Amino acid sequence: MTTYKQVTAFAPATVANVSCGFDIMGFAITGTGDKVTVTLSDSPDPVVYLSGPYGHLIPSDRDKNTAGVAVNAYLKETGNNHLRVGLSLEKNMPLGSGMGSSAASSAAAVFALNYLLGSPLKTIDLIPFAMEGERVACGSAHADNVAPALLGGFVLIRSYSPLDIISIPCPDELYCAVVHPHIELKTNDARRVLKSDISMADVIKQSANAASFMVAIARADFDLLGRSMHDLLAEPRRTQLIPGFEIARQNALKAGAVGCGISGSGPSIFALCKGKTVAMAVAEGIQQGFSEAQLESDLFVSALNAPGTIIIQAN
Amino acid sequence: MTTYKQVTAFAPATVANVSCGFDIMGFAITGTGDKVTVTLSDSPDPVVYLSGPYGHLIPSDRDKNTAGVAVNAYLKETGNNHLRVGLSLEKNMPLGSGMGSSAASSAAAVFALNYLLGSPLKTIDLIPFAMEGERVACGSAHADNVAPALLGGFVLIRSYSPLDIISIPCPDELYCAVVHPHIELKTNDARRVLKSDISMADVIKQSANAASFMVAIARADFDLLGRSMHDLLAEPRRTQLIPGFEIARQNALKAGAVGCGISGSGPSIFALCKGKTVAMAVAEGIQQGFSEAQLESDLFVSALNAPGTIIIQAN
Repeated sequence: MTTYKQVTAFAPATVANVSCGFDIMGFAITGTGDKVTVTLSDSPDPVVYLSGPYGHLIPSDRDKNTAGVAVNAYLKETGNNHLRVGLSLEKNMPLGSGMGSSAASSAAAVFALNYLLGSPLKTIDLIPFAMEGERVACGSAHADNVAPALLGGFVLIRSYSPLDIISIPCPDELYCAVVHPHIELKTNDARRVLKSDISMADVIKQSANAASFMVAIARADFDLLGRSMHDLLAEPRRTQLIPGFEIARQNALKAGAVGCGISGSGPSIFALCKGKTVAMAVAEGIQQGFSEAQLESDLFVSALNAPGTIIIQAN
Repeated sequence: MTTYKQVTAFAPATVANVSCGFDIMGFAITGTGDKVTVTLSDSPDPVVYLSGPYGHLIPSDRDKNTAGVAVNAYLKETGNNHLRVGLSLEKNMPLGSGMGSSAASSAAAVFALNYLLGSPLKTIDLIPFAMEGERVACGSAHADNVAPALLGGFVLIRSYSPLDIISIPCPDELYCAVVHPHIELKTNDARRVLKSDISMADVIKQSANAASFMVAIARADFDLLGRSMHDLLAEPRRTQLIPGFEIARQNALKAGAVGCGISGSGPSIFALCKGKTVAMAVAEGIQQGFSEAQLESDLFVSALNAPGTIIIQAN
């Protein structure tokens, strides 16, 4: 029951954790992302065809490739194991960047496949398949990148079991600066530095900030938003893995950022800002911080209500 | 610089923790509370004059009485140590009820004193003094009862240091049923059963529910509110201290409660409900649960946007 023979989808980069929302918050940004083309085929194809600047760095074996694993999960769970599809991935996003690179590949893949099949599933129901892609990429089937990559905008994951995903509209003036330094930090390495148990005092602070962050977004209260952007779980241990982090953050705050932290598991740094002009200045401030640590970097500035995965070609 | 010679204030009962907001959320209810009268005096007075149904159960020594300690803290911190005031406490609320009994005494005391002095401090700035009353009452200077008792309504405590308190307006249809069984559970006993460290998985769930609870309140999304009302920190260990808890909760949910949990550190049980009629039925269901455990109980039904501490007499 297919509608098209070949579909190409684009999924955006994402910022996960958002300082006070470890594993439960994330949002899509504009400016970079991955493309996946799914093609109806007559024969099984164990290979993902790779292109783009970072295509040569990832496995082409479909069972080890994040897009391939996500597509396999979709086909298996929907009883479409008999379907033969070819996969091409244009890998535009660097690995281990903290900008949801693997999530973008997974999201684009399942979105394109679902569209090819006539969109039998709603976008939100594609998330579990894309999470399987995350599992193979980083050892943890977290949703805080794939959910915003698919749905767009800001997403809160209330529960993983059952999956309970809530889209959170953001104030229009809310922008994000993301700066990606040219070093790789593997998500499972970044996970390894985490503590397994957290003190009651820190749990109370973490949940208070997560709660007040949501209040701040709903009220467009940028001052409260900034006060809420603290992470007791991951940032205190991960910042040491990112050269220049402290200077970059100080620069961001000096340039007017509402708050600043690690994007996903790093090494990218994000900052929330009121307005695009401030976000540009903040991005440059962060870039300057990395520069002092002898790191080149790329910057991205995006509104927070950014689109999720889209179809860019179907025939 | 006093404006009055004698002031009496009434502070309401409160529900703290609210299932997903351990130590960070609380709200005021109508129907019961404590009264404190502060009288300008010529000589030092080391005694708190006690009345009301539970007055005989608490210390009259001003340095051990929660209202006395709160007043002492106020006088000391505001440089009014020279002032002599007499204190009378009408103790209407049972101790160890989980309904903010000690907080009501502290809140009424500092509110009355501040009014007596011509209201030099804003209500929100009285919270730290009332917290000192909590410290002597239960060994922990928590704010999730005293803040809503003073301010009224629903309160989120984003941070304890510095104190950062956010008032959260609730949907008008949101009501609370609170049922107090006739057993005493001391707050420091209830704190003793808590774990000191929490697993990362539970921290993630706790902060996700705290965040989505705030979203649900802002959207008047009662379904999400119910899904968010889970506590991983205290309830799993405290319910065993409350006979009849499980049946009472099941009854509450059957009667249409949005969600149900322990009020403060218990043994009272609270439930959030859509509308007053449902809340009445839910309260009776909880009462029935306690009754099956051979416990008599009192019930209270209140809107969530309830008043805080008020002056009932000044001359």
